[in-house]
Amino acid sequence: MRNIKITDSLFGSYTKQVADKILEYQWEVLNDRQKEALPTYCIANFKIAAGEMAGERRGIVFQDTDLYKWLEAVSYCIDNGTGKAFERQADEVIELVGRAQEPDGYLNTYFTIMAPEKKWSNQVEGHELYTAGHLMEAATAYYEATGKDRLLNIARRNADLICRVFGPEERQIHGYPGHQEVEVGLIKLYRVTGDKKYLDCAYYFIDERGKEPSYFLEEIRRRGGYEFFPEFDNYDLAYSQAHMRPAKQRTAEGHAVRAMYMCSAMADLAGERQDEELLEACKAIWNNVTQRRMYITGGIGSSGLLERFTVDYDLPNRTNYSETCASIGLMMFGQRMTAVTGEAGYYDIVEKALYNTVLAGINIEGNRYFYVNPLEVVPEFCTKRTYMDHVKANRQKWFSVACCPTNVARTLASLGQYIYAKEGNTLFIHQFISSEVKVILEEGSLHVKMGSRLLQNGVVRLDYESDGAKALRIKIRVPEYAKSVKATLDGDLLEPAREAGYMIIEAGEAGKHELAVYFGIDAKWVAANDNVREDCGKVALVKGPLVYCLEEKENGRNLAGVYVEINKPIEPREPAEGLVGDIPVLEYDGIRLENKEISRGELYGAPEFELKEMKLRAVPYCLWNNRGGGEMLVWQKVKI
Amino acid sequence: MRNIKITDSLFGSYTKQVADKILEYQWEVLNDRQKEALPTYCIANFKIAAGEMAGERRGIVFQDTDLYKWLEAVSYCIDNGTGKAFERQADEVIELVGRAQEPDGYLNTYFTIMAPEKKWSNQVEGHELYTAGHLMEAATAYYEATGKDRLLNIARRNADLICRVFGPEERQIHGYPGHQEVEVGLIKLYRVTGDKKYLDCAYYFIDERGKEPSYFLEEIRRRGGYEFFPEFDNYDLAYSQAHMRPAKQRTAEGHAVRAMYMCSAMADLAGERQDEELLEACKAIWNNVTQRRMYITGGIGSSGLLERFTVDYDLPNRTNYSETCASIGLMMFGQRMTAVTGEAGYYDIVEKALYNTVLAGINIEGNRYFYVNPLEVVPEFCTKRTYMDHVKANRQKWFSVACCPTNVARTLASLGQYIYAKEGNTLFIHQFISSEVKVILEEGSLHVKMGSRLLQNGVVRLDYESDGAKALRIKIRVPEYAKSVKATLDGDLLEPAREAGYMIIEAGEAGKHELAVYFGIDAKWVAANDNVREDCGKVALVKGPLVYCLEEKENGRNLAGVYVEINKPIEPREPAEGLVGDIPVLEYDGIRLENKEISRGELYGAPEFELKEMKLRAVPYCLWNNRGGGEMLVWQKVKI
Repeated sequence: MRNIKITDSLFGSYTKQVADKILEYQWEVLNDRQKEALPTYCIANFKIAAGEMAGERRGIVFQDTDLYKWLEAVSYCIDNGTGKAFERQADEVIELVGRAQEPDGYLNTYFTIMAPEKKWSNQVEGHELYTAGHLMEAATAYYEATGKDRLLNIARRNADLICRVFGPEERQIHGYPGHQEVEVGLIKLYRVTGDKKYLDCAYYFIDERGKEPSYFLEEIRRRGGYEFFPEFDNYDLAYSQAHMRPAKQRTAEGHAVRAMYMCSAMADLAGERQDEELLEACKAIWNNVTQRRMYITGGIGSSGLLERFTVDYDLPNRTNYSETCASIGLMMFGQRMTAVTGEAGYYDIVEKALYNTVLAGINIEGNRYFYVNPLEVVPEFCTKRTYMDHVKANRQKWFSVACCPTNVARTLASLGQYIYAKEGNTLFIHQFISSEVKVILEEGSLHVKMGSRLLQNGVVRLDYESDGAKALRIKIRVPEYAKSVKATLDGDLLEPAREAGYMIIEAGEAGKHELAVYFGIDAKWVAANDNVREDCGKVALVKGPLVYCLEEKENGRNLAGVYVEINKPIEPREPAEGLVGDIPVLEYDGIRLENKEISRGELYGAPEFELKEMKLRAVPYCLWNNRGGGEMLVWQKVKI
Repeated sequence: MRNIKITDSLFGSYTKQVADKILEYQWEVLNDRQKEALPTYCIANFKIAAGEMAGERRGIVFQDTDLYKWLEAVSYCIDNGTGKAFERQADEVIELVGRAQEPDGYLNTYFTIMAPEKKWSNQVEGHELYTAGHLMEAATAYYEATGKDRLLNIARRNADLICRVFGPEERQIHGYPGHQEVEVGLIKLYRVTGDKKYLDCAYYFIDERGKEPSYFLEEIRRRGGYEFFPEFDNYDLAYSQAHMRPAKQRTAEGHAVRAMYMCSAMADLAGERQDEELLEACKAIWNNVTQRRMYITGGIGSSGLLERFTVDYDLPNRTNYSETCASIGLMMFGQRMTAVTGEAGYYDIVEKALYNTVLAGINIEGNRYFYVNPLEVVPEFCTKRTYMDHVKANRQKWFSVACCPTNVARTLASLGQYIYAKEGNTLFIHQFISSEVKVILEEGSLHVKMGSRLLQNGVVRLDYESDGAKALRIKIRVPEYAKSVKATLDGDLLEPAREAGYMIIEAGEAGKHELAVYFGIDAKWVAANDNVREDCGKVALVKGPLVYCLEEKENGRNLAGVYVEINKPIEPREPAEGLVGDIPVLEYDGIRLENKEISRGELYGAPEFELKEMKLRAVPYCLWNNRGGGEMLVWQKVKI
């Protein structure tokens, strides 16, 4: 689907930033001209690789991907009509990328410049295939947005090389990526070019992974040490999901982004190859993530160390990782699971990840980022070189490993893909984000304007114009939080059929129609499973897809000392000043517990608790830390 | 003080293990003959250094200290009459140590074998001075216990070399240890030999530390990288308390063991040199630790990463470090602060650390150890290669960095030094641990048998025999938790004078006397300062020096779902089977919160809390994990 225009009061303010500011800001960062961010050396590395600049290649081994993700974001912006201004820059830098490519198709500034003799020798740490995967994603996106095939051809030559180097033949390397991503890229390349060897190569990487004897352990043994990441010492195959064949995996293990990128490819392959074994694995891992290892914000990766999954129900709120990129990976996985199974429900989780963790990853102005997304912050406890080193109490300008900023940009720029989908004569609506699109279906077209007040009153209006083909249908996801599902079409109450998590609307006669859907969304308290020790006796406030949080600004310091009374009403109030999206603040009764006796300075003393009634006011989690620093809390203690 | 015999029902069972089993077990470990523990290579390294064995030197750079701490423990056991059997082994291994010493006095198996050209070049990581300090502590202890000066002379030759190599002269290195310890060793050597250059050298190390430009940063710059500990990358001077001159420090920073060993030396030096500036620093750091950064168990070092202090009130219960050795360091510091100031109150904290964290560091059988001492454990969440990697749910057989087992052994073996002290005609009683000692004072002697029922009913009996010198006095620490302070002497009610935290008892006429002290100790709830977010709305149960905890064995799983009603009575019950010390279990009313609706398997859902009344039963924290694995919890939620 093309040319989807986002008009939403919440998301629109971010997508506008992508086109107006973020792409420009990130371009300056890639060129080391953004004074307030650390240098990335990204473009410089390509120039050195192309022989157009002297010097040493710097930055992290996969720094090239910053540019590829930027190009992917530019592509989506060109597609949705906001990115035209970057096309010339993109074309120029694509030429540079082409000049940095070696004659045989090899393309990776680190190995070309620093260690040509070590090409393909370090899958565990080297990120060569990961980097290639982002090239392929950018190339297919740019081709689809512009019709220009320069980058596509660069990516194809690179992919052709990869397909020659890796594979089951004796002359080929029987390896697979340390960080999955190339699989997703190869599948996109297959879909755009129709060349089946890319699909086969993607399948090879998934199928070969985790076989015994372990390719990774053999590679480490042969090398005798670590080249890039000393923290990989005592390498644990589960960290990169190489502890067993992916088709046999049933739980989400290891590094969360790696796991989600792998699962996205597995879901794609399950669909393309009608592979029941892979689909079964995808479903099991999905259930394990979403029913055992996911924060209510759609964040994943409980461990601050190594950015990874831990075990079922281990969901600490303060020391967690919950990387922005991991939730983007979860969105990718969910999107593909719906595509393969036809079940809408996966989008409940996509929505949760998008509205909470992913959006929290960027500030309203579009120039500060969270890599780590805690559910509870006391700023003075977020200290460097301690167990809290990874948790930042304020969004940062950039990161030395800057996967998240560019990943958020490309995700926001491609937001339309998560809202709409089509198949045959059916338009699917998966998200309720105000937007406009003209969609060409098999036997006709629909011009849709969605006006969503989901976050305000749970009402979504679709004004659409049909060209009259009788068979056209609109299938609308019914979210799990919908209390009621009422719909009217041109003022008439409908009783729409329901199927696989969708309500089915016949688009009707040619001409304009007004469809209104009433989901009946209330603010409500949610508790966690008792096994989540961290959340015992606590509740989180949600309304529709949004998780709310308490910030110090409205509620004072020491949010850990606050209790809520969950049987009293939750009242909507005016949106908070300085935030976006026209989203009501929620107000409710709370109690503040204070320890009279010992707050004078003693560390421990007699409990003389004093309880004070107070009003608490919660704002959407995704918007926290947009009005200065301070404490933040999602899970609130319940007065029992 | 010599020949103190521990007869206590709690501590006696551990000190008996030291002599009966632990020294033997650890000796086997040092010799790599203990099949269930990892090899330490400790004795082998000395043999290689002595030229009596071929091979490569293995183990951690400061592995030699395992032997020195073992020798120190043996010394104390010989002194208290339980260690005679090890004297021959000790003498033999001391000869080996002597043969491993180089002609100029240098003694360190790592540098002698592996890198003689790098001697004294790496204070940041090399632990040469740290290792030397443990040699000096062992040497003085062995000399005092046996009168034999072989090890003392080895240590002196080593110390003489150190005094030549380091110092203010131009030809000397203007450095100081990366891990403090040599200062404490040098001061002990000074006290035993009377040679003031050792005291001066200890002072030099403290005085030089933290001066600008930084010796450490210069050393790192010169070396250009890290030799032993890659995790020191981005070295932070505060990690080793080298960020400012110790005399100017006011907060406890960095690695907790380093900090405590340094403070112990500072307190010694403040006393020896009547140095008010150092004393002021000691008091400020002591207050910062005990009033801002210490767990109720006397554990210190909140950060699992780098075993270090973080910031005021940051006291996570589940991810903390609270190294056993750090609490031993706190005991050493407190002991010296009382010695310097004459104030008994420091021993309240010594007692807290000893009765809780230090004792928790070892199991009842004496063959399993905790390095890390959390206040809350859910075993399945303690997973390797995650943020919980450092936290073990069960005591371990040994560690690759095995400072704690030998440190616990030497501390338990020297327990008498923490119970009694003397000065002039006064016997000080600092701890209420059943024991027997004959003490020679200036003008007479006392033969004391202490029978303490502190943990049962708060009554401490002293049966003593005086040889009749009129001036003899007994000063007994009045602990902060004493609700009343009554005493009877030979049945007569006393009204003892109080001073500096002591009650003062005149020992009276020649002959036998019975002194009974009634402290009136109740079990009680303690709350933390509101700023400790982790403990808001929670309480811990204490009785006298003991912190109690809930274990899964008596209270079931999911202790996070348990609430206590703090206004209801706490009842003593029979001691639990399988534990030692004859300490009552404490029973009280609790409530278990369960989430009816969603415990069927969903991760998140509506809060439908069900409350069930239950009886809770708590055991002393120091004894947890002695009856199999399971959950454990110190800070319990309060029903408000």
